[in-house]
Amino acid sequence: MPRGVRDRRKREPDLRVDLNGVTEGAIGAETGISASELEALKPRLAAAVSDLQAERAQGLRPFLDLPYQRDAIEQTLALAERLRGECETFVLLGIGGSAVGARALAGTLAPDGGHGRGRIEVVVADNIDPSAFDDLLERLDLRRTVFNVVTKSGETAETLAQFLVVRERLLREFGAEEYARHLLITTDAGSGALRQIVNDEGLFSADYPASVGGRFSILSPVHLLAAALLDVDVEALLAGAAAMDARCRVAEPDANPAAQLAGVRYLLDTLHGIQTAVLMPYSERLVPLAQWWRQLWAESIGKRVERDGAVVSIGQTPVVAVGASDQHSQIQLFLHGPADKVVTFLRVEDHGARVEVPQTYPDIADVAYLGGHTLGDLLNMEQQATELALVKRSRPTITITLPDVSPHVVGQLFYLMEVEAVLTGALFGVDPYSQPGIEETKRLIFGLGGKPGFEDERAEVERWLRGKQPRFVL
Amino acid sequence: MPRGVRDRRKREPDLRVDLNGVTEGAIGAETGISASELEALKPRLAAAVSDLQAERAQGLRPFLDLPYQRDAIEQTLALAERLRGECETFVLLGIGGSAVGARALAGTLAPDGGHGRGRIEVVVADNIDPSAFDDLLERLDLRRTVFNVVTKSGETAETLAQFLVVRERLLREFGAEEYARHLLITTDAGSGALRQIVNDEGLFSADYPASVGGRFSILSPVHLLAAALLDVDVEALLAGAAAMDARCRVAEPDANPAAQLAGVRYLLDTLHGIQTAVLMPYSERLVPLAQWWRQLWAESIGKRVERDGAVVSIGQTPVVAVGASDQHSQIQLFLHGPADKVVTFLRVEDHGARVEVPQTYPDIADVAYLGGHTLGDLLNMEQQATELALVKRSRPTITITLPDVSPHVVGQLFYLMEVEAVLTGALFGVDPYSQPGIEETKRLIFGLGGKPGFEDERAEVERWLRGKQPRFVL
Repeated sequence: MPRGVRDRRKREPDLRVDLNGVTEGAIGAETGISASELEALKPRLAAAVSDLQAERAQGLRPFLDLPYQRDAIEQTLALAERLRGECETFVLLGIGGSAVGARALAGTLAPDGGHGRGRIEVVVADNIDPSAFDDLLERLDLRRTVFNVVTKSGETAETLAQFLVVRERLLREFGAEEYARHLLITTDAGSGALRQIVNDEGLFSADYPASVGGRFSILSPVHLLAAALLDVDVEALLAGAAAMDARCRVAEPDANPAAQLAGVRYLLDTLHGIQTAVLMPYSERLVPLAQWWRQLWAESIGKRVERDGAVVSIGQTPVVAVGASDQHSQIQLFLHGPADKVVTFLRVEDHGARVEVPQTYPDIADVAYLGGHTLGDLLNMEQQATELALVKRSRPTITITLPDVSPHVVGQLFYLMEVEAVLTGALFGVDPYSQPGIEETKRLIFGLGGKPGFEDERAEVERWLRGKQPRFVL
Repeated sequence: MPRGVRDRRKREPDLRVDLNGVTEGAIGAETGISASELEALKPRLAAAVSDLQAERAQGLRPFLDLPYQRDAIEQTLALAERLRGECETFVLLGIGGSAVGARALAGTLAPDGGHGRGRIEVVVADNIDPSAFDDLLERLDLRRTVFNVVTKSGETAETLAQFLVVRERLLREFGAEEYARHLLITTDAGSGALRQIVNDEGLFSADYPASVGGRFSILSPVHLLAAALLDVDVEALLAGAAAMDARCRVAEPDANPAAQLAGVRYLLDTLHGIQTAVLMPYSERLVPLAQWWRQLWAESIGKRVERDGAVVSIGQTPVVAVGASDQHSQIQLFLHGPADKVVTFLRVEDHGARVEVPQTYPDIADVAYLGGHTLGDLLNMEQQATELALVKRSRPTITITLPDVSPHVVGQLFYLMEVEAVLTGALFGVDPYSQPGIEETKRLIFGLGGKPGFEDERAEVERWLRGKQPRFVL
C-alpha cells in the first residue's frame, strides 16, 4: 500500500479511562469524590459539553474540526514528500505551542528520531540557549537542512532571534540567490513582522491556521508536517482523534470521557484540596506527549477569574513524572507528602518490543522472581503496585490505558486531553483559550531589549534592580 | 598539563544567592517573609547547622566529606583511564539515586555527550521501558561497550532485570569466558544479591560507599566515574564543592547560604502557603542538574511526621521549568494561578558560546530591537523580565547566579543544594535521609512478580483489581 494508507476495515482499539481511584468508595471521603458530588455537578457538565458543541457549530472552535481537514492534510503530506527529497534534517524553530506539538508527535510516534532509516531527522529547537543553539548549528550540514520558522503572531522574540541568526548563516553560506531554499516560514496569513518579511523577500511560507491557538494546534499542519516527515501514519492519528471526538461530543456526561475527567478534576480541586495534577506515563515514548499536556494544562487553566465579586487565582499545577524511574524519585513525596495531588497514570498494554528477562539464579530469591517476565510485564506491574500504594494512602488516581502507542491511540489521547482542558476551564469559569499573563513578561522584555515605545518598562526594571538590597544577597 | 589538573592560583568565582524576591519589602506581607519571621527562626536555623556539623564530626554524614576523598578520586580517575582504553560506550544501568547523579554530571558538564571528540559516550539507562531498552541494545556495538550496573542494595528490581537481560546478551555474544569483561558492578561491599553474584562469578566490581544514600552520592565515585570518562574536570568540581562546604558550615545563619535558603523555604511553606518549589534554569545545560535536585528534594522532604501528637504530611512539591521555553508554557500559571509557588531561577552570566543576533530589518520595529544583542543577553533579559513580572504579582522568587557552567561552579551548586535539603528537613522535623514510602510499593511489586513470601501482597492486589467497578471505566 502507498505511504500513509492502511487497511481500516479492522476495528481500531479504544483507550480506556478508569476513574475508580478517585471515588469515595476507594479512597475515603476526605480526598475521594462521592456519588452525590458527581450527581450535583452533572447539569453544569452537560451544559459545558453542549456549549462547546454549540460554539463549534458557530465556527468558533476550529481546533475541534482539525481531524477532518482533508485538503490541509493532503497538502501537508505532499509538502512532506517534497521536503523529503530536499533535505536530511528539518529544524523547527519555535517556542511554546509552536514547538511542543511537533516534539510530542515526533517523540511519541517516531521515538528513534528517524535516524538511519532513510527518513529525515527532525529537530525541535525551542530555546535560545546560546551554547545549545551554537552546538546545533555547528553540527548541521546546512546544505541538507531546512529550517521551519514557526510563530503564529510573527512577533515572538525568541523565534525571531533564532531566525535572524539562522538567516545570516544561510546568507553567508549560500548567498542571496539561494539562501531562501533552506527556509519555510509558518505564520499568520495576513499579519505580523514575519509575514511582512515573507512578502518582501519572497520566502516560502505556510499559513498558521486562523483561530487555532498554539496549544490547540497539534492536529494542524503546523505540527503534522514533522510527523509526516518521520513517516508517522498521519491518517491513523487523525482517525483516532475523530473517534475520540465522537465520544467527547456525547451529551450525557456519564458516557463522555472528557466530561468525566473534567468533572473529576474540578471536584478534586474545589472540594478536596487537590491542587496538583501529576501525569505519569509508564512508557518513555509518552513523555513528550506528557510535556505537551503540561503546557496545555498550565496555560488553559492557570487563570485569574472574577468570582463572587473578587478576583481569585485558580489552576492545578501540572507535573510530569515518569514510570518506573520516578518511583525512585517522586513517589516517596506522592505517598507520604501532602495529600494535594491526583496522579493520572498512562498505562500501555502492548509496548511493541518484547524483552524477556531470562530465568537465572534460581537460588537467589531477590533475583529469581524476575525471570520469565517481560520488561513490559514488569513495567505494568510497577504501575499497578504504585496505583494501589497511592489508593491505600487515600491519594486519588486516574488510570488511562492505551492498547498500544500507535498513531490511532495517541490521536485519541491528544483529542481527549484538549477537550478535557476546555471543559475543565468551563467549570472553573475561565477562558481556556487566552494567556494574558504572557503579555506582562513580554512588555518587560521589550523594555530591556530596547524596543521603542517601551522606555517606561526599561526604567521600571532598572529601578527594581537598583532597589535590590545587598544584605539579601549571599 | 596532564588531564584533570589545572592552575588553581587564579581565584575561582562564587555563585550568588539573591533572596530579595522573597522579602515582605519586595512582594508584600501575604506571600513575603518579614524581618521578624526570619529573626525568630534564627536560633533553630543555627541549631540545625551546628547539629549537622556535630553529626559530621561523629562520622555520621560521610556525604559531606566526599569532596576530600583523595584516594577514592585517584582510583576513579585511574579506572576511567583504563575504561577509556577498553570501550567506546559506557552504559550505566541504575534507577533513582543511582542514575540521576551521573546523568546530571554528564548532561550539565559534558552536554555534547562526548560524541566525536575521542571521548567515551556515556548512556544512563534508568528505566525498563521495553521499547527504549531494546532500541538501546540494538544500536550498541557490544564489543566496545561496558555496562556499569549500579544498585546500592543489590536488590533493586528494575536494575536487576536490566542486568539479567544484558548478561544474557553478553553471554550469547562472547561466551562464559569473555562476557564478564563487559560488566562493572557497583554495589554494597558486603551484602545483597548482586554482591553474591559478583563473588560467585568473579565479576569486576566497585564498592558503593558505605553510609552514603543514593541521592547524596553525586560527589562519590559512583557518579564521578561517568564524569571522568567524559573528561570533566573532577578535581575542579570537588574543589567547588569544598568551597561551598566552607560557606555552608558557617555557624551564623545570616552568612550561610544553605541555612538562608532552608529558612526561607520553611517560612514560605509554613507561614505563607507556598507548597510548590519551582526550579527554573535559564540554561539547557542545567536541566539535568534540576532533574537531580527534583529527586533530592522530593525524597528528602516529602515525609509523614509526628507533630503535636498527630501525623502530618509535609513537603513542597518540586517542579522543574526551563527558561526561556517554559515562559510560553508554565509562566501563565505561575503569574495568574494560585500564589502557592516559589520560583528559584538559575541564571548564568557567561554561557560559553557567544551567538550574536545580527542587526537587520531596521524598519520593522518587532524585529529591529533584537539586533546587536547576543542570545545569552536575550536569555538573561528574559530571566529578569520573568522575575520582575512574578515580583509584581507578589509571587516569591529566589535567584541563584552562576558565573558560568563550569565544574567549579556546578560543584558549588550540588553541595549547596544537598546541605539546603538536609537543613530544610531539620526545620520540618523530618529525617531527610530515609524513603520509607518506597517500601510500600516494593512489597506490592514483589507480590505481583511472584516473589516467595509475598503471597499476601499478591492476593491484596488481585482483590483490589476485582473490586474495581466497571461503571467508573469509560
